[in-house]
Amino acid sequence: MKTIYLSSKFTVVLIMSTFLVYCTPEPGSQTQENPSPEVSEKVALPSWNDSDSKRQIMDFVTEATNPDGTNFIPVEERIATFDNDGTLWSEQPMYFQLYFAIDRVKAMAADHPEWKEQQPFKAVLENDMAALAEQGEKGLLQIVGATHTGMTTDEFESLVTDWISSAQHPIKNKPFTELIYQPMLELLDYLRANDFKVFIVSGGGIEFMRPWTESVYGIPRDQVVGTSFVTEYDYNDGDPVIKRLAKIDLLDDKGGKPVGINRYIGRRPVFSAGNSDGDLEMLRWTDSNDLNTFKLYVHHTDSVREWAYDRDSHIGRFDKGLDEASEKGWSIVNMEKDWKVVYPYEIMAED
Amino acid sequence: MKTIYLSSKFTVVLIMSTFLVYCTPEPGSQTQENPSPEVSEKVALPSWNDSDSKRQIMDFVTEATNPDGTNFIPVEERIATFDNDGTLWSEQPMYFQLYFAIDRVKAMAADHPEWKEQQPFKAVLENDMAALAEQGEKGLLQIVGATHTGMTTDEFESLVTDWISSAQHPIKNKPFTELIYQPMLELLDYLRANDFKVFIVSGGGIEFMRPWTESVYGIPRDQVVGTSFVTEYDYNDGDPVIKRLAKIDLLDDKGGKPVGINRYIGRRPVFSAGNSDGDLEMLRWTDSNDLNTFKLYVHHTDSVREWAYDRDSHIGRFDKGLDEASEKGWSIVNMEKDWKVVYPYEIMAED
Repeated sequence: MKTIYLSSKFTVVLIMSTFLVYCTPEPGSQTQENPSPEVSEKVALPSWNDSDSKRQIMDFVTEATNPDGTNFIPVEERIATFDNDGTLWSEQPMYFQLYFAIDRVKAMAADHPEWKEQQPFKAVLENDMAALAEQGEKGLLQIVGATHTGMTTDEFESLVTDWISSAQHPIKNKPFTELIYQPMLELLDYLRANDFKVFIVSGGGIEFMRPWTESVYGIPRDQVVGTSFVTEYDYNDGDPVIKRLAKIDLLDDKGGKPVGINRYIGRRPVFSAGNSDGDLEMLRWTDSNDLNTFKLYVHHTDSVREWAYDRDSHIGRFDKGLDEASEKGWSIVNMEKDWKVVYPYEIMAED
Repeated sequence: MKTIYLSSKFTVVLIMSTFLVYCTPEPGSQTQENPSPEVSEKVALPSWNDSDSKRQIMDFVTEATNPDGTNFIPVEERIATFDNDGTLWSEQPMYFQLYFAIDRVKAMAADHPEWKEQQPFKAVLENDMAALAEQGEKGLLQIVGATHTGMTTDEFESLVTDWISSAQHPIKNKPFTELIYQPMLELLDYLRANDFKVFIVSGGGIEFMRPWTESVYGIPRDQVVGTSFVTEYDYNDGDPVIKRLAKIDLLDDKGGKPVGINRYIGRRPVFSAGNSDGDLEMLRWTDSNDLNTFKLYVHHTDSVREWAYDRDSHIGRFDKGLDEASEKGWSIVNMEKDWKVVYPYEIMAED
């Protein structure tokens, strides 16, 4: 077991929070006002109701692309950054990446018979979340270290690819990649159609996301920013490999998001979207751009179609961000009221 | 003066080498066989003679874009990585970034009267390169630390932008950004026209390059990978800023190049170009891609139009790379014989 070096106290908060189960009603079925059976490129944001949020987004983009207006944004400056967990896909009852880590512990258990009696692995193998929580940060970091590092980048990518193509959400009973937000997919498309370059800037693992963001969101690997581990170039029998070490490189949350944006993108965004206090620094960084900018918060208000949570949630807590967004007039998307559908499969079900 | 933390012994080698002046004849005028007065998009690589290198490049791209062939490369896999110093622009008699550092020491000297008597700054202020070399790695790191860190990213960008728009190469008497290679610009264009995504992967500073790569090479900021310093998010009187700290984050040279490629791009390239042993690991990493790949070395053979150097040079040493490229059949571009012109201003002079 390698040592995990903490780069920030936020690591602990981030990872801890995923194990504190958030109480939520079971999602049920729902009706939609006016679902679009096919999302035409010519009709922007078809799954959005005609709300303030939709109008604000479209006004911003219209002005950004009008070369005669004062709010014109040159194409090279059209950088849009999106959080992932809770902004592009769901994050309840725990971050999806943690399901991957838990499944990995179970898959690796045969090679680690000692785990049957050794915490925190014993708790995972016995599905005892209370015992797991008792292991605290040290236990959780051991799980992340054991499942996310100590292999080559190629090996880790295979593990993620295999898992994401087969695993299912335990409540929704859908592949995790189907639990993405249809209205946000349309927003990505709309921005791209107007020459915005779209990036993910997520607290999730960069190499956990890259294998599937291209097919799921149309976001290429080099436009994904996330939490990363230190890596090392080496040779295996003469073949070049990159090894994943058990040391955090970038913790892409809170103040780490502007740092990640600067590191990977090298420009302040003009458009940023998040859903939690962990995104607040990214939205402030965007707001500090001299150009006209758009700050968007997704507010999880839909206890029927998705989950409803904000100030008191241990996952995706939205408290300071909610206050600051209200005070500064940033756009707050009300999932229940602003979105005709939440998930793409709702549209297909209507067909 | 902050402490510089070394992440690798290569930092020292990289920076030391820039102060060891390479002996070279003054560049003179030259005739061109068949200069293209205007580079049409329809004629690929017009400044390249009909050499093996040109034919190999065009064969590779033709096959990569033929969906019926066995060497077809899907668009999302068409990643091309280019070293900068000595591959896209000149690097003699020392890396251009070091001229920036020296000019910064001189500009900052008024606020540091103690530097008149304090090495390594005294040597810089007296233009005494021999004395500077005597200061060794510690002195050089002090110069880099004092000139490249301890300010916000916005402040550093302003310094670079001001300098690059006014400074001139001491031998060529041209702005540094005119000392770029016309045939390589055409190669970038040719690859982009065939849906390759082009990145810089350089030992030079990422934030030294980003302010001008977009206008000079057409390479956006987020497609620039380079050596970086650790940064920190903070507030100045409530305004968000990112501060540059005197600690190396990524040393993007040798084994650091595959690490940088993995960090920023998340894919093995299919096309890589370099000019020195510092690029060898990048070319090997490219070569290890399961897809068909192209490895290109620029060989500095032109003592008249540019500089001629390879195995014994302290800057851009090309020794192990030359052997391995020859042995493995990688493309070695002979600048003197393969290029009709070196710099874009030669074409303009012909008009």
